[in-house]
Amino acid sequence: MSESSTIERPYLIGIDLGGTKILAGLFDKNLNCLARSKKSTKASKGYRFVVERISKCVEELQKDYSFDFKEVSGLGIGAPGSINSSKGSVIFAPNLDWKDKSLGPDLQDQLNIPTIVDNDCNLATLGAYHHEFIGKVSSALGLFIGTGIGAGLILNDELYSGFNHTAGEIGHMVMSLGGPKCGCGNKGCFEAIASRTGISKAITNEIKNGRKSILTEMLGKDLEELKSGDLRKAYAKGDKLVQETIHTASNTIGIAIANMINLICPEVIILGGGLIEQMDTVMMPIISKSAEDHAMTGAAEGVRVISTSLGDNAAIQGAAVLASRM
Amino acid sequence: MSESSTIERPYLIGIDLGGTKILAGLFDKNLNCLARSKKSTKASKGYRFVVERISKCVEELQKDYSFDFKEVSGLGIGAPGSINSSKGSVIFAPNLDWKDKSLGPDLQDQLNIPTIVDNDCNLATLGAYHHEFIGKVSSALGLFIGTGIGAGLILNDELYSGFNHTAGEIGHMVMSLGGPKCGCGNKGCFEAIASRTGISKAITNEIKNGRKSILTEMLGKDLEELKSGDLRKAYAKGDKLVQETIHTASNTIGIAIANMINLICPEVIILGGGLIEQMDTVMMPIISKSAEDHAMTGAAEGVRVISTSLGDNAAIQGAAVLASRM
Repeated sequence: MSESSTIERPYLIGIDLGGTKILAGLFDKNLNCLARSKKSTKASKGYRFVVERISKCVEELQKDYSFDFKEVSGLGIGAPGSINSSKGSVIFAPNLDWKDKSLGPDLQDQLNIPTIVDNDCNLATLGAYHHEFIGKVSSALGLFIGTGIGAGLILNDELYSGFNHTAGEIGHMVMSLGGPKCGCGNKGCFEAIASRTGISKAITNEIKNGRKSILTEMLGKDLEELKSGDLRKAYAKGDKLVQETIHTASNTIGIAIANMINLICPEVIILGGGLIEQMDTVMMPIISKSAEDHAMTGAAEGVRVISTSLGDNAAIQGAAVLASRM
Repeated sequence: MSESSTIERPYLIGIDLGGTKILAGLFDKNLNCLARSKKSTKASKGYRFVVERISKCVEELQKDYSFDFKEVSGLGIGAPGSINSSKGSVIFAPNLDWKDKSLGPDLQDQLNIPTIVDNDCNLATLGAYHHEFIGKVSSALGLFIGTGIGAGLILNDELYSGFNHTAGEIGHMVMSLGGPKCGCGNKGCFEAIASRTGISKAITNEIKNGRKSILTEMLGKDLEELKSGDLRKAYAKGDKLVQETIHTASNTIGIAIANMINLICPEVIILGGGLIEQMDTVMMPIISKSAEDHAMTGAAEGVRVISTSLGDNAAIQGAAVLASRM
């Protein structure tokens, strides 16, 4: 190719496709975020509609920070489910009600930007790892706690997704045999106990049993709209039920981390997600102590348990890292 | 080095050092087992005594199959604890009451054979993997159920031991928050529920609560000497309590495997250990079904759950594989 025909492609796009919102970021080659855009997913309107929404999100980036799609060398996207990354397809994404969707090729057709797909938690892990730990540690577990609980694994400096590209489904690690029912059909999954959803159910049950909480004043009796920010507010106001429930959940998160230290022993465990973002200062000390207390002798030595400084941007950052490697 | 000075070294030695017995095997270069010897460990007599016992075990091999130590190219040994394999040292082995012991260098001084050390479950996994799956799958979990529960991980065709060389401590994965107390100090560990020790305690508790079992006729009231073979016999004789307990344990083992499929998704899960060896035909179908039922949609597709054909020889076989790579 002659010099004159090469187009400079200084930009990357990273997208975090969630069950409720789509977040897109424009990045330069040094992986600095230049602009962000956000849209609700509206997954109930079907696959084609969501692909359109993603395109619109990218077009909004373009409006915000004028650039040409030809200047974008790659687009990475994280989706909430099991992914065949070589095909760019979503095998199964229950929150979107998708099965076998060619998301990568379809987006590439639409935007004419080379596109690569991975699991959202994998990409959030990659983003946090790349931002804070690359070159310093070779293994990491990213653990994301919000509506649900997901994880990503970095082993030998690389994302590890396992035989069926499904590794990291830590939310469905059974931790309480015969315990509370989980959305997946099993009982006692980590997610059913310590996610925002699990915490909300535990609080609702206690309220039904006669306990008081200011959450009912804030949100009504069934707490349907409960967000992580509401838990933070109630906790700060000294709500005993919320405090107890958050302490129990934090202790359980620490035990889940100890399980992972005992099983895989990553060098660093990076926490993120909505609940951690809102309640970092309260939860992290309890989580760290519980992880240390429950890990086997010697297994947790030197292993760091931290929360990511990237917050909500971890997955779009990781998506851009992935795109930069295309 | 001139041709005349090279000694042919056609043999390898593999040793499985356990809390109760030492098993040693002589192998040819094609990893065929030529001879075996066995001794009780007598760990209570201290580290130096055990090193002597291991040497004697090797000398018995020599008596059985006459060869010169100079003809042995390497000796691999698996120890029950966390190992620093680069130093050949045992960091911590609770069953032997060892901390920071230079087992590799000490054995090498004693026998004048190049020696390499790893965790016993890692080596049993390596042995089973090498014997049945090498070149066919790139990831495997070895799961060994006996007095305790241990595991080893093969990822990207290699043993994975993690940051502190402690990975694979699946026995201390908490599966029942607040559940039965485990020897490690935690509650509800997998080992406390589904190992032979856990099963024995569950049966003893039921007997204390008034249930009947032929085990008390076989072994006396407190079942102190209960072995996996006794469980097999009582099960075959139709003992209802033993049957129920074995079914519950098998179901729990399946859930533990589902946890590992959800977390790491290895291509094959290879079971071994005393309990599986004795009760393979009863337990494996329940374990496989439970693993499949509890794994996330798509995660278990094509993943095989099998028991190793190597039986008790898995660890010495793996130790020989390790020695062959020195």
